[in-house]
Amino acid sequence: MDSPSRRTLAEVGEDLLVSSVTARYGPPGPGVVVGPGDDAAVLDLAVLGGGRLVVSTDTLVEGRDFRRDWSTPADVGVKLAAQNFADVAAMGARPVALLVSLAAPGELEQVWARGLADGLADECARAGADVVGGDVSAASEVVLTATALGLLTAAPVRRSGARPGDVVALAGATGPSAAGLALLAAGQGDGHGDGEAHAAVLTAHRAPRPDYAAGPAAAAGGATALIDTSDGLLRDAARLAASSGVVVDLDPGSPGLAAGPALAAAAAALGDPGLAASWVYGGGEDHCLLACFPPGVRLPAAFVPVGSVRAPGPGQSPAALVGGEPWRGPAGWVHFG
Amino acid sequence: MDSPSRRTLAEVGEDLLVSSVTARYGPPGPGVVVGPGDDAAVLDLAVLGGGRLVVSTDTLVEGRDFRRDWSTPADVGVKLAAQNFADVAAMGARPVALLVSLAAPGELEQVWARGLADGLADECARAGADVVGGDVSAASEVVLTATALGLLTAAPVRRSGARPGDVVALAGATGPSAAGLALLAAGQGDGHGDGEAHAAVLTAHRAPRPDYAAGPAAAAGGATALIDTSDGLLRDAARLAASSGVVVDLDPGSPGLAAGPALAAAAAALGDPGLAASWVYGGGEDHCLLACFPPGVRLPAAFVPVGSVRAPGPGQSPAALVGGEPWRGPAGWVHFG
Repeated sequence: MDSPSRRTLAEVGEDLLVSSVTARYGPPGPGVVVGPGDDAAVLDLAVLGGGRLVVSTDTLVEGRDFRRDWSTPADVGVKLAAQNFADVAAMGARPVALLVSLAAPGELEQVWARGLADGLADECARAGADVVGGDVSAASEVVLTATALGLLTAAPVRRSGARPGDVVALAGATGPSAAGLALLAAGQGDGHGDGEAHAAVLTAHRAPRPDYAAGPAAAAGGATALIDTSDGLLRDAARLAASSGVVVDLDPGSPGLAAGPALAAAAAALGDPGLAASWVYGGGEDHCLLACFPPGVRLPAAFVPVGSVRAPGPGQSPAALVGGEPWRGPAGWVHFG
Repeated sequence: MDSPSRRTLAEVGEDLLVSSVTARYGPPGPGVVVGPGDDAAVLDLAVLGGGRLVVSTDTLVEGRDFRRDWSTPADVGVKLAAQNFADVAAMGARPVALLVSLAAPGELEQVWARGLADGLADECARAGADVVGGDVSAASEVVLTATALGLLTAAPVRRSGARPGDVVALAGATGPSAAGLALLAAGQGDGHGDGEAHAAVLTAHRAPRPDYAAGPAAAAGGATALIDTSDGLLRDAARLAASSGVVVDLDPGSPGLAAGPALAAAAAALGDPGLAASWVYGGGEDHCLLACFPPGVRLPAAFVPVGSVRAPGPGQSPAALVGGEPWRGPAGWVHFG
């Protein structure tokens, strides 16, 4: 227990913690004029490719968004980076940098903070970005906030641009993260019966790996609207519909909305085959990209058609429907619920 | 209790909370292509004046960095914006935008979140910046993380550039925030005896208002090193000294380090006149700017000389000293302490 790696944050202290975490990131790439360790980071965006700056911030709270007994610290680092970069991609932009605030109990072991940094560095490398700054604070529970920076060379793709007649398309599969969470909550994670068979959905929950390139591809491909499915397909589709003043009608027969074998196996393990569809439509944290494209446009390779856009009928509000009807399953992730 | 403003975050729900908070910010200025409400914000930095991008993130935790019974939510909003913009100014940059994550118990009243937004908007207006994005999450305690963006047209002024012979100079007065905190901790805040006489230090603690323009002025004036005194004058001077490999020797006779009447009054109220000097050297959260300038340079108007830089003697480590000696009072704010 006297090993340096088992020391707590309180024992290590702020300055040594920051330098030991920063060391995990390695040297930043070109374009980062000043990296972590000063009052602020300095970026030369022209060197990073130029364009408009895209910024988004998102928080993970221990016990609500992750559990330290269910996920490794590296998993949590990947997840924190992924959910932030997905928001940048959902404007059509390319991630370039990340800042991370770690608020944690002083009793947390330094090895956890280092593992977090390893996961952040790993997902940043996959996204083509650098960790350029951060902060550490004491708190009663672990609260992680990241801010992602991206660059956008096309026009931004907002939630509000969908038009009647557009094709609705999805990059990625919704449901696996919720399936993994359900297995963990039921005590059917790794090492329990079919744990091996469920590895894909467990990993999807712990450390999602979104397809960031689908964002710029959608922008270049003429997308009229774009959103990240962080709170569940239907909930985020409803947000896009409300912003655009349209009805998004998802086609339940679309192959892009079929629950695959991994979801079916997880649902069977939990004794309720109907769960699989609930995860597809209601499950959050997959960070897929939901886009609308004008009719007749050739969809970028990452996207498959999953529905259509129409104008609300007389007396009808903007909404997200499934096969023309309101969905009767769970409605997606609710904060403060 | 049925008034809309007394509703809790859980009752209001995420989407309505976000829109009600965003409404407090008013329309963003030119250069903000997409403001709050989409997956990410989009900024046209050329419209905002161009230059290198400066980014920093910082967190406030309830019960550690503020108390809801000691500060109004608007105070906390000002403080959150101020500590983040001060980090941007401490590179020599001008603040342009802020993102804010609010993690809070579902039982928190919406009126608190709105007050926070009012304080953020107020300090952003003073700094010439816009709130461009944010996030809300459920947590056991209030944890606020902001990320500040700034633009830098000169070379960045780092902590590491101080050279022997430089003049050390300070913009702003250190100590008032710690004095205000000490009064509040002793139950001698507003309405207690000399509460009125202590208004300035109480306000300095609750809602600091740093001089952001001093950062770009220092850069333009040839500063070799620059740091924000967020954790206390001596602790941050020691960081600058360590980064630069020098000894920073503060002159206790300097008018810029004299405890003014407000600090003396607060120390007297607490029965220990010696507290005043402790606040000057050890008190955090004033967000003054500590800079080094080459000898003979005319200091920018905001700065007063407070010491000098020399090379460490044989066997001596880089350090911050007071009158050539180590300081024997409190060492500054310690996270995880």
